[in-house]
Amino acid sequence: MNERSRPRRADYRHFLEIPTRWGDNDAYAHINNVVYYSYFDTVISRYLLESGAIDLKTSEVIGVVVETGCRYLAPISFPDLVTAGLRVTRIGNTSIRYEIGIFRNAEDQASAEGHFIHVYVDRATQTRPTPLPRELREAVTPLLVPPGEPA
Amino acid sequence: MNERSRPRRADYRHFLEIPTRWGDNDAYAHINNVVYYSYFDTVISRYLLESGAIDLKTSEVIGVVVETGCRYLAPISFPDLVTAGLRVTRIGNTSIRYEIGIFRNAEDQASAEGHFIHVYVDRATQTRPTPLPRELREAVTPLLVPPGEPA
Amino acid sequence: MNERSRPRRADYRHFLEIPTRWGDNDAYAHINNVVYYSYFDTVISRYLLESGAIDLKTSEVIGVVVETGCRYLAPISFPDLVTAGLRVTRIGNTSIRYEIGIFRNAEDQASAEGHFIHVYVDRATQTRPTPLPRELREAVTPLLVPPGEPA
Amino acid sequence: MNERSRPRRADYRHFLEIPTRWGDNDAYAHINNVVYYSYFDTVISRYLLESGAIDLKTSEVIGVVVETGCRYLAPISFPDLVTAGLRVTRIGNTSIRYEIGIFRNAEDQASAEGHFIHVYVDRATQTRPTPLPRELREAVTPLLVPPGEPA
Repeated sequence: MNERSRPRRADYRHFLEIPTRWGDNDAYAHINNVVYYSYFDTVISRYLLESGAIDLKTSEVIGVVVETGCRYLAPISFPDLVTAGLRVTRIGNTSIRYEIGIFRNAEDQASAEGHFIHVYVDRATQTRPTPLPRELREAVTPLLVPPGEPA
Repeated sequence: MNERSRPRRADYRHFLEIPTRWGDNDAYAHINNVVYYSYFDTVISRYLLESGAIDLKTSEVIGVVVETGCRYLAPISFPDLVTAGLRVTRIGNTSIRYEIGIFRNAEDQASAEGHFIHVYVDRATQTRPTPLPRELREAVTPLLVPPGEPA
Repeated sequence: MNERSRPRRADYRHFLEIPTRWGDNDAYAHINNVVYYSYFDTVISRYLLESGAIDLKTSEVIGVVVETGCRYLAPISFPDLVTAGLRVTRIGNTSIRYEIGIFRNAEDQASAEGHFIHVYVDRATQTRPTPLPRELREAVTPLLVPPGEPA
Repeated sequence: MNERSRPRRADYRHFLEIPTRWGDNDAYAHINNVVYYSYFDTVISRYLLESGAIDLKTSEVIGVVVETGCRYLAPISFPDLVTAGLRVTRIGNTSIRYEIGIFRNAEDQASAEGHFIHVYVDRATQTRPTPLPRELREAVTPLLVPPGEPA
């Protein structure tokens, strides 16, 4: 991992501050690798809720996570402040690929980068893929960037 | 805390083995104080599900947690095996008081003891207390012991 | 629980905003009872770190949690913003009792109240209680209020 | 995802039972995508501890996680029993690639598959990659299988 391959804030389109919690640290006193995924989950679901694209209780479609991944580039520790950057690199017929950069305090180079693929299904069956609703497609379009290197 | 006040396995009526997870450890390399409550939650909800007293999706009543507490008596660390002991010290008209002992590996003296008070409400409103259903009352009666020292 | 017994913001001395995370919700779509303790943990440890009273890696004394508790007064759900209020009701020779109020969004009445008792021990043995260091005692004194009702 | 591409138990070399916890469920009443990584973490760190390859407190080298990933193939819910299968597909000079299959109850087809790459560094600096110690290399060799499809 050389410095050149660390994403920067300008590579993302939306940002959310996520303060770390004491329990995010593991026995090595760094944020546990698992916890990064809770940051991914949070920036995406909050964006979707606040944009009105998804209502947790009444939406007819829900996003099922089919794939996630993370590369860890530099350690973070409580009480650091995390800023999660969000972008979308693919809006398919029934799925969306999100990419996330995790930034520590005021740093411009990401401490981690991840991806997250949602397939949309109808709430009742939770299995059959469903075309993205128009309001969801509109909500994520501002986040769309050309795909870069695979995360 | 003297040794005499540590509960023993014989003080409980039902047991569940809960293996610790790596992420349960905090930066001091001990199980984080928060995680004990996930053990409490798990032994109680699993007992209720397996006894058939509660069905997560269809029960008309759900248990709302109104109070919890824990005294920490001795440290535990991953990869220890936790055994959670469970008893009930009060079955009210609309509420149940559970007490939990947390045992480390083969030890007979508890490493922590906690309590957990459920008030039952109807699922629709989630606020109005509701008399315990008969099947729930029957399910927890075998766990009932006379109350001892307040946890 | 009547409304009168819900603490208000003015009852606390220090505040920290803690955004909820998607995974804080449980299967009933409310913040899980366990997660409140991670809010307690976070407001206390962050206060101690930022006041300089404790350094995670080098302090000769560490705070061991001997008791925690929580009363749940009203539900919270992701993506609510939590504000944790903090006060101290007892500074002993070797221990400190913290009390925490959990406030939802802009509400003035607490959604939960909890307590958290630290006993200080030396890092090496992690068992022998140790008098509070002067800088710790000074750091928490501004949080001290006369004890009210037991939490 | 067709059925053929779901790994089976025979594809793994070591197994650990991991009971689900109530809090593992998210607001959709399925195991949250984040939690799978705690299963990965747990099966690997426990294998390394129990094989004697790593001692959490004294090892001169520690495994730093540089990449993780997961494909979710079928839902799991509390109180399901998870069995985590473990294999190694690459033992490098300073790194190891683990692959994990997550099996629900008695099922033979995986509900999820993941990977986890450790780079070993010396404990003091936590940055400089270090050749795998002999005892670690010996511990993971029985898990080695020829690499298959990339996870």
